[in-house]
Amino acid sequence: MTPIQPAWQARASAKREAILSAIPTEWRVPAPIPTLDIQLNVTGTYIQQYLSPREIEITESDAEDIVSHTTTGTWTAVEVASAFCHRAALAHQLVPCLLEICFDRALSTAKELDSYFTTHQKPLGPLHGLPISLKDQFHMSGVETTMGYVGWIDTFEGKPRTSLPPHERDQESELVRLLRASGAVFYCKTSVPTTLMAGETCNNILGYTYNPVNRHLSAGGSSGGEGALLALRGSTVGFGTDIGGSIRVPAAFNGIHGLRPSAGRLPFEGVANSMDGQNTILSVVGPMATSVQGLKLLVQAVLAQEPWFVDPLVVEMPWRHAVEERVRAAAKDKGLAFAIMEDDGTVRPHPPVQRALGLVKLLLEQKGHRVIDWNPPSHATAFDIAMQAWHMDGGTDVQAHRALAGEEQLPECFLQPSAHLSAAQVAALNVKKRNYQKAYMDYWNSTATLTGTARPVDALICPACPSVAVRPGKFKYGVYTTFVNVLDYSSAVLPVTKVDCVVDGEHRPAVPLSEMDAEVQADYDCDDCHGSPVALQLVGRRFEEEKVLSLVQYVEGLINEATQRM
Amino acid sequence: MTPIQPAWQARASAKREAILSAIPTEWRVPAPIPTLDIQLNVTGTYIQQYLSPREIEITESDAEDIVSHTTTGTWTAVEVASAFCHRAALAHQLVPCLLEICFDRALSTAKELDSYFTTHQKPLGPLHGLPISLKDQFHMSGVETTMGYVGWIDTFEGKPRTSLPPHERDQESELVRLLRASGAVFYCKTSVPTTLMAGETCNNILGYTYNPVNRHLSAGGSSGGEGALLALRGSTVGFGTDIGGSIRVPAAFNGIHGLRPSAGRLPFEGVANSMDGQNTILSVVGPMATSVQGLKLLVQAVLAQEPWFVDPLVVEMPWRHAVEERVRAAAKDKGLAFAIMEDDGTVRPHPPVQRALGLVKLLLEQKGHRVIDWNPPSHATAFDIAMQAWHMDGGTDVQAHRALAGEEQLPECFLQPSAHLSAAQVAALNVKKRNYQKAYMDYWNSTATLTGTARPVDALICPACPSVAVRPGKFKYGVYTTFVNVLDYSSAVLPVTKVDCVVDGEHRPAVPLSEMDAEVQADYDCDDCHGSPVALQLVGRRFEEEKVLSLVQYVEGLINEATQRM
Repeated sequence: MTPIQPAWQARASAKREAILSAIPTEWRVPAPIPTLDIQLNVTGTYIQQYLSPREIEITESDAEDIVSHTTTGTWTAVEVASAFCHRAALAHQLVPCLLEICFDRALSTAKELDSYFTTHQKPLGPLHGLPISLKDQFHMSGVETTMGYVGWIDTFEGKPRTSLPPHERDQESELVRLLRASGAVFYCKTSVPTTLMAGETCNNILGYTYNPVNRHLSAGGSSGGEGALLALRGSTVGFGTDIGGSIRVPAAFNGIHGLRPSAGRLPFEGVANSMDGQNTILSVVGPMATSVQGLKLLVQAVLAQEPWFVDPLVVEMPWRHAVEERVRAAAKDKGLAFAIMEDDGTVRPHPPVQRALGLVKLLLEQKGHRVIDWNPPSHATAFDIAMQAWHMDGGTDVQAHRALAGEEQLPECFLQPSAHLSAAQVAALNVKKRNYQKAYMDYWNSTATLTGTARPVDALICPACPSVAVRPGKFKYGVYTTFVNVLDYSSAVLPVTKVDCVVDGEHRPAVPLSEMDAEVQADYDCDDCHGSPVALQLVGRRFEEEKVLSLVQYVEGLINEATQRM
Repeated sequence: MTPIQPAWQARASAKREAILSAIPTEWRVPAPIPTLDIQLNVTGTYIQQYLSPREIEITESDAEDIVSHTTTGTWTAVEVASAFCHRAALAHQLVPCLLEICFDRALSTAKELDSYFTTHQKPLGPLHGLPISLKDQFHMSGVETTMGYVGWIDTFEGKPRTSLPPHERDQESELVRLLRASGAVFYCKTSVPTTLMAGETCNNILGYTYNPVNRHLSAGGSSGGEGALLALRGSTVGFGTDIGGSIRVPAAFNGIHGLRPSAGRLPFEGVANSMDGQNTILSVVGPMATSVQGLKLLVQAVLAQEPWFVDPLVVEMPWRHAVEERVRAAAKDKGLAFAIMEDDGTVRPHPPVQRALGLVKLLLEQKGHRVIDWNPPSHATAFDIAMQAWHMDGGTDVQAHRALAGEEQLPECFLQPSAHLSAAQVAALNVKKRNYQKAYMDYWNSTATLTGTARPVDALICPACPSVAVRPGKFKYGVYTTFVNVLDYSSAVLPVTKVDCVVDGEHRPAVPLSEMDAEVQADYDCDDCHGSPVALQLVGRRFEEEKVLSLVQYVEGLINEATQRM
């Protein structure tokens, strides 16, 4: 007897097939996709086998290089878009990561851009012809958003389109409009975990998004589709969202760059979300890219469009070139001061992450910058505040969306059954959060007496996660990213090195700092993650995006210099 | 048989007596204070009778004039502080408006400032020697804060001081610290309505704060003590708070100036509040002053202290001189565009307010600026959102504070028994508010096609209240100020004219716009408010404080010019 398939499974698999069928036949990877025994890592030379040298050249250029060609007419938008569509199609077949494919629209936009350039002999904007991937929370006119919910298929955020007034049936997020006005080309939307509240990416439509560098491991979450696509160079810049680490965890796991800006710097207006209206800890949109210059390019382009006139929560704060200049001057003058946090007192990072911290510390000190220790107000308190914020509605929102199709909760979602808070309890939580922010601010200020620069530290460098990419189901500890969301600080992830079993292999046993530490340390298996990217996080204060990105650029320069010396 | 006095009444009257006893004997007004039949207006020549010519000269100088003397050493801080202490003492005896008196501290601060000036031959900061009054929500070291609650007497925000860790027993609000570091002198704290949620000012400690221009009428609320003190020139600059009009209503009723900045521009950190943590609509701190230059002086001084490093909710946004320059240039060049909203579709303003709107419109048009009509998303919707936000905790907070002493709710408080919202309902309200902000923003943007300046309107000019100062119990309609709080826009109140029965007397009957309109119109009695100040509100977008203040300065210039011509 054939077991009866629930209706939602049929809907999910129809959607999965529809996504695949949007890939032209000539771009199909000959079945079967190699098993893990044969090919763990599908990035680099593996995916290149299906591409022309010209396609490889284009897709392995970073965003700033691409726009240097497309805004000057040396590359056409159509050629660039075609190359990225092709590579994204391959990427998706190797590691399922796309919830929407709209290559036709991309090519048609690209044609219009080429024609604009021919007519005006100038680009439409600073992103002219740049393909940008988007996490499947962003609404794009004519393209569906499911956010991984089966019940959202063929609807607008779960509501039948016919039940909505015409102008609400097919909206576009403000960020998408601004990027489009700058010349961006949209060609796909990337996978997310159902509910978005997970450090891994899995939903009932696409299944699990593995890490393309090592398909035993996770691509991270919640912007895991972006992470995997970027690692495969099916994209060079994209946008994710981050309410607890959702940009930074996949950036770290996939060896790419990601920025978590402060809330109110970039426009979230018109973006689908979980628990919309929960405003104790706001989710933010932020760029992910194969280079830090790519992050800068996107932030600058969006700010140049004055997002504060289209999103009521965005603050009028243009890109501040003066901050970049000040960082550059201080960098030259041995005048920077950093804090490095080796661990947060609850969970120690694994040896590869420890090594990355040590390397960066050494490089900064060699250049004459000051590096101090970091003993802030407890990050566990911050995490506790965040967990209360994420659970405040007792699951009402995500349960309602899952119930639309009757689908099951996937184990990756970390939301637990919880009590529904009252408004007075929410207010008390807001006060607790503000007091935490104030205590952290005072602590940061207090470092002015330790740095020798007469200023507090310029940034904090710390792990983004205690581990590199984990085995499915093993993402356990999000505190290293979440404290930043509670503080609403600006933070970027930078790749530092790769796991090297020879160097990192020996895991010195230590008395665990906590039960969680014991669990996390037990998961460390150097052989399993050999070659995986190792990243760190560089954290600035609120609205210090210019400073954070400039410092990441500087630190990366030091790392590259050192790597070349070796 | 003597009726038994509840214990809270005895506590309240002991506090009232303690306040009075802080006034030196030589500054006592000879009893009895004249009755209303004899003396309605106690400002101007009336209060002057108790002051020396020199004291009058000092206290009738605006803040910018005072600091021009105190920062250059031509007036001593002690002489200025003494004059304001004396006049504030008189003010309080004529219209009870001070919940705290700390003249001794003021004189001791002033002495230190004079000594600083003698030693360094320069001022401590831009506010050197400037007396600043504070609404009784601000904490000042060594001085109590009751916020009008009897149960807060001899406590810290209702908590016995001995129950608190030592460093929490005697805190100072961050704004107070920053002002102090700029050279300010604090000498008193001003009355508020219990709960703060009222458009009039009355509490069980001091009773009702009448309007010093006409003691039949209200000084407004909730920063009504500030309003009355400023009208009596017992202060020239002070700070209030505003969550629905609490700075702007008393500013309008007392014929002074007030600024409601956007949340996050000036530091609220460490200020006592009602329903702390309710963050759908945040209360803000803002300056009140006898001149618009006084408002500017305070905002600039606070921003110069970089409040974003002491308050985690403040945005790093220094004073933008370039905005002032742009306003000045556009003003010279007939290049400004305004919207004037004659009424909000629900309640028409009384004839004196209508006349003020007409006058300002005429003056702007005569100078060649564009003035358009204003048909925004319904302000009633905004008010409904605000009422839900203020009622979200079902009264939990204010009831708890009233219960500390068992005191009764006063009729001025507009909070009604209400249901306690759940976190999901709060989230839904936040979404509703954001959608309203977005619709309003889109409407504002849409005026770019109507102004002829290629920009949307520079500001909206509208009533701050449909009436001038009301009879006690008659403050009924706060929508004209509250929509600004929901939008989080910047807004200032400017005095325009005075009620003139000859001109304003005839009240043309009109079909009421609503039941509320019928009620508000029925309250109009020109004879009753003859001579009362008539003010308007100038509203800018979010974080446009520089623009709003510069435009108010310009519009006032036109009004003064016109007044001198008449």
